[in-house]
Amino acid sequence: MSNVDDQERLEPAALAELLASGSDPAVERVLSGAHPADLAEALDHIEDLGAKLRLFTTLDAETASRVLRDASEGARAFLLTALPDARLTSILEHLETDDAADLVGGLPEERRATLLQRTDAETRREVAELLTYPADTAGGIMKAEVPAVSAGTSARDVVEYLRRNAEKLSDVWDVFVVDDERRVVGRLPLRRLVLADDGQRVDEVMEREVVSVRTDTDQEEVAHRFEKYDLTSAPVLDASGRLVGCITVDDVVDVIEEEATEDMLALAGVSGSAGEMDGALRNVRNRLPWLALNLVTAAASAVTITRFEDTIRVLAIAAALMTIVASQGGNAGVQTMTLVVRGLALGELDTGQMTKVVRRELTIALTNGAVLGTACALAVYAWRGDARLGAIVGTALLANFLVAALLGSLVPIGLKLLRVDPAVSSSVFVTAGTDVAGFLIFLGLLTWAL
Amino acid sequence: MSNVDDQERLEPAALAELLASGSDPAVERVLSGAHPADLAEALDHIEDLGAKLRLFTTLDAETASRVLRDASEGARAFLLTALPDARLTSILEHLETDDAADLVGGLPEERRATLLQRTDAETRREVAELLTYPADTAGGIMKAEVPAVSAGTSARDVVEYLRRNAEKLSDVWDVFVVDDERRVVGRLPLRRLVLADDGQRVDEVMEREVVSVRTDTDQEEVAHRFEKYDLTSAPVLDASGRLVGCITVDDVVDVIEEEATEDMLALAGVSGSAGEMDGALRNVRNRLPWLALNLVTAAASAVTITRFEDTIRVLAIAAALMTIVASQGGNAGVQTMTLVVRGLALGELDTGQMTKVVRRELTIALTNGAVLGTACALAVYAWRGDARLGAIVGTALLANFLVAALLGSLVPIGLKLLRVDPAVSSSVFVTAGTDVAGFLIFLGLLTWAL
Repeated sequence: MSNVDDQERLEPAALAELLASGSDPAVERVLSGAHPADLAEALDHIEDLGAKLRLFTTLDAETASRVLRDASEGARAFLLTALPDARLTSILEHLETDDAADLVGGLPEERRATLLQRTDAETRREVAELLTYPADTAGGIMKAEVPAVSAGTSARDVVEYLRRNAEKLSDVWDVFVVDDERRVVGRLPLRRLVLADDGQRVDEVMEREVVSVRTDTDQEEVAHRFEKYDLTSAPVLDASGRLVGCITVDDVVDVIEEEATEDMLALAGVSGSAGEMDGALRNVRNRLPWLALNLVTAAASAVTITRFEDTIRVLAIAAALMTIVASQGGNAGVQTMTLVVRGLALGELDTGQMTKVVRRELTIALTNGAVLGTACALAVYAWRGDARLGAIVGTALLANFLVAALLGSLVPIGLKLLRVDPAVSSSVFVTAGTDVAGFLIFLGLLTWAL
Repeated sequence: MSNVDDQERLEPAALAELLASGSDPAVERVLSGAHPADLAEALDHIEDLGAKLRLFTTLDAETASRVLRDASEGARAFLLTALPDARLTSILEHLETDDAADLVGGLPEERRATLLQRTDAETRREVAELLTYPADTAGGIMKAEVPAVSAGTSARDVVEYLRRNAEKLSDVWDVFVVDDERRVVGRLPLRRLVLADDGQRVDEVMEREVVSVRTDTDQEEVAHRFEKYDLTSAPVLDASGRLVGCITVDDVVDVIEEEATEDMLALAGVSGSAGEMDGALRNVRNRLPWLALNLVTAAASAVTITRFEDTIRVLAIAAALMTIVASQGGNAGVQTMTLVVRGLALGELDTGQMTKVVRRELTIALTNGAVLGTACALAVYAWRGDARLGAIVGTALLANFLVAALLGSLVPIGLKLLRVDPAVSSSVFVTAGTDVAGFLIFLGLLTWAL
């Protein structure tokens, strides 16, 4: 028995150590008791590839399939290469179709074909079908195993149906009710099935309120519906409205984390897949393009500065003060941008609310700009005894806050309207804009005043 | 019947318009067909407070309770003030205890006490109990309604138990199995109950593998377990291991979005609660402190620059080039920091892997720094014809990338070790550090070379 609990939980590192070192009976006892998700994590802590493979090979097919599904990308890639085809085939047949599709989806074309050839006809057909959908749509995350009965079925017969398909439908929370053309007409949560009398017809006890998605619905929108309507599973319909699969909430939890991570990293200028903590080379590829782009925009704002070289020669302190104006504007812009990007991602904000958002952001910028501009002006006056210089810094700071408010709200909304992901590209425009504006406004005012 | 689907879904704005304008029978038809979550969203689109209140008042207590639960913070605050106590009491009794606790938890002490006084004894006791736990722990998100039976119960009697408590246990996915002291010994997913024979004992069909949490487990860790172990519900135990509540996955979905939003906003320097798109004043309060702190650090790095005023006077172009070095370092630092902060939040990274992370980050910084430093050196040489100036910019850029790698990885890990949330405070230290380092290294090298 494996109760996972704060007190009793074996840390993956300790588990790995035990597994790598132990005598056979001890290892066997740990393996049989551990949760597959913990074994997957422990695999990552075993450095020696031979030991990793040996350990994995001792698992039964059912456990092995769950461990492989939960393994980190690195461990999974290694095991997929190292395991013989026969073993992988049996693992594929033990996985739900969505997980099987994820697994073979990452393989080279040829290997994928070889493996699918060896699986049974049903798995082959279903997995091949799932692979035709883009990975980030409902079709790409759904499983083909979907419990469906007709409205006239008795509760007793639904139970019989679930029993007959017990192996295939191992993760069921709702049974969907369909008509002759596989259109969804209702949903039967298991709780309702449990409470129904044996002889009751499905349409007497089902819920008629069904939230469904289409195969081409974006996974972010899928997650949004699960969250909004508190769903446990949702039917997936094809273009003509027929039931072709279903999505369960455990997959949606992964989507939510993945989307949030992607947005967060994109805002920081890291492209590519989520949460990659491995592979320095891959990290270089994920980050270099954005740094290079930033180098270009930084150069552009540096060129702005060179137009004021005379001013800087006369008043070298300007070089110091201009960085404050740019830095404050950048930070204020990033605040606005992040709120807007996140609001758009969560569906709390839509592009129609543009005017409202801009008005609110300008109000906030005016308030923050007035407070901090005044503070900054007074500090400069106290420091340098130059009231005019203080006034110019304060004014430039306030003005750059207004620029930041405009860019921080309009850039992501504009990108969204152009169907570009605001998380990926907003930062570049917003920070480049507030840098250039900060330097231009401050040095421009100063040059004019000198 | 309300099928929510890509094609048929009524936009909240349209719904709001219909509701605000319509004749009574039309409104009634829409109200009875709409999903409470859609009604909650529509409420936000009705500007007129009187209309908002009138609409809400026409809802039956069951629907009203779900609408109020899903309403935005603004709408909820208004309704809580505007609704009479009798109505609120009936709403509270229709809510699950966790939602009821959330609702009254936001009220002033006195109002809360008045409302709870009016509810039935069980609700009052349970809600009061839930309110004793911090909001961001398992105790703070759990509900007191938890389905629990003993191991010797027959499947038939479990069904009878669920039927008897149908109103209270309206959202059940697993029945927990407890011993005489309410210690959890197993979990009976409804699917297993459905497939069991009437006479079978619970301990013949239950799963012995139970992932539980304690009342004081942090909600981020709760979410992590649901994700890792693909849970639908989890029992919550008190300090002595007794079952006191349970958490269902729909609540965890909200926690994941909330935690991700909070981290994202914290990284951008917005404190406070998640996704606040309303209230300019509240936004000022959430952002001003961080901007003020940034003003202080920006001033500190500006002071660094003033130490090199002589150099800048001689070579005014230095004022332009130093901003490139600082900007590139800042961006590289934010990339590293975001990856580390997110890795720590998702549990993909722990503080023990510090050496590994720092080594990898330094490798990436060396690579990116070499590429971009060289590019920058060549560009400056081409532009100004000054090879030495180019070499200094390139070297400073590379060096600042190394500083960024160190700060970006060590600051969040260090804060985590000090039990400070890395998302909240890392940005300040990392960007201030790369600014100061960028100015110091570049201007220092230049002064020494002049």
